Amino acid sequence: MNLPFFYIDFLDAQMTAYTLSEETSKHIIQVLRMKIGDCIQLTDGKGNLVTAEIIDDHKKKCVVKKVDFTFLPFQNKKAAIAISLVKNSSRFEWFLEKATEIGVQSIYPLICSRTEKQHFRKERMQTIIISAMLQSKQVWMPVLAEVISFQDFINTNTSEIKYIAHCEEDGEKNTIEKNNNDYTSVMLIGPEGDFTKEEIESAKAKDFKPVSLGINRLRTETAGIVAVTLFNNWY
Amino acid sequence: MNLPFFYIDFLDAQMTAYTLSEETSKHIIQVLRMKIGDCIQLTDGKGNLVTAEIIDDHKKKCVVKKVDFTFLPFQNKKAAIAISLVKNSSRFEWFLEKATEIGVQSIYPLICSRTEKQHFRKERMQTIIISAMLQSKQVWMPVLAEVISFQDFINTNTSEIKYIAHCEEDGEKNTIEKNNNDYTSVMLIGPEGDFTKEEIESAKAKDFKPVSLGINRLRTETAGIVAVTLFNNWY
Repeated sequence: MNLPFFYIDFLDAQMTAYTLSEETSKHIIQVLRMKIGDCIQLTDGKGNLVTAEIIDDHKKKCVVKKVDFTFLPFQNKKAAIAISLVKNSSRFEWFLEKATEIGVQSIYPLICSRTEKQHFRKERMQTIIISAMLQSKQVWMPVLAEVISFQDFINTNTSEIKYIAHCEEDGEKNTIEKNNNDYTSVMLIGPEGDFTKEEIESAKAKDFKPVSLGINRLRTETAGIVAVTLFNNWY
Repeated sequence: MNLPFFYIDFLDAQMTAYTLSEETSKHIIQVLRMKIGDCIQLTDGKGNLVTAEIIDDHKKKCVVKKVDFTFLPFQNKKAAIAISLVKNSSRFEWFLEKATEIGVQSIYPLICSRTEKQHFRKERMQTIIISAMLQSKQVWMPVLAEVISFQDFINTNTSEIKYIAHCEEDGEKNTIEKNNNDYTSVMLIGPEGDFTKEEIESAKAKDFKPVSLGINRLRTETAGIVAVTLFNNWY
């Protein structure tokens, strides 16, 4: 995959040509100065990869013709992170970038009792995920869920293996179990100031196991990345 | 440790009072509006922790009296990361912040064949490490080495377990071995564009084992954080 690589929101094995978005067209024609006959690759972030040739180098509505269409199976772990929003958006953006690069299946932005931030610019966050996916040359992108309250999340999540990473003293904590990607996993990551005792108890009642992410007290976004890394390497 | 927590470059069990730096004094007296009789904590990032009481609330030369002196043993893993500088300094700074938070013993900034950045503002980088240490309430900070060339590093490093994380096809790659922190470990992380084949061969000749950090191609700073996380959790 050394051709210039772009995102497109819809790909279909039956289509033979695509008109690219204004932004992508500009990038290809004005920034990269590509011409009719040059090739690019496109993904929809859902495993589809198209190699295509430029047939109209319009700088706002570039048209490409399909040369090859491939579907690549999902290779990352079946792991999700449900993580509190944080006050400083750039820290959350950083989490999204790095989590995408390392590999995660879905991300649920949470509002917990102690979450200070309520506002979430989903469109901007989606853009960050797309560029991290392209940058790391993947054809699958994490599914970014709508913001959800802690209670609604734990009441509705159906993952097979569930963890909660919190900093309260809580007896012997678990470590992430190895599994051969046969099961879906999720980990809850709390806000600055941690989950409340009540939240921890309700999560435990819903079969979320307390887990330790190491001896140091981590910021929310750092804990998120540590969790993604461990999910990716402990299977 | 809920008292305001600061860095001081020198602490000694014999000393009974300390005059704080202008910056720390300003923060304590002007920003936090602390008064004579209020208590703070100080660390030198070498395991020493002093609890002290303000006896002169001068806004540039605050003086504190020792109330308690404790030495806390090093608890993180005996692991080092030798990592190429990257073009965008803020990405390297981010690596330093997160690596400190998660826990690492030493960091060696490397110049490899394909490293584009040569300039390294050590003082600024040191400041980032200090604030990450304070923020995560640690009393040990990673030792930040001077910039060193790849060849000099592999010729002189004496860690007992040595890894190189590279992206070339190289047969079956190793994973990080578990050990009970009895041995010192180091991992080499390459520049954007990876190590050259020659660098990989010379590292292997010096007993650095090729290791995989997962299936995705990671940016330098992301690979560094994944390595720190794995060292901390695979022992």
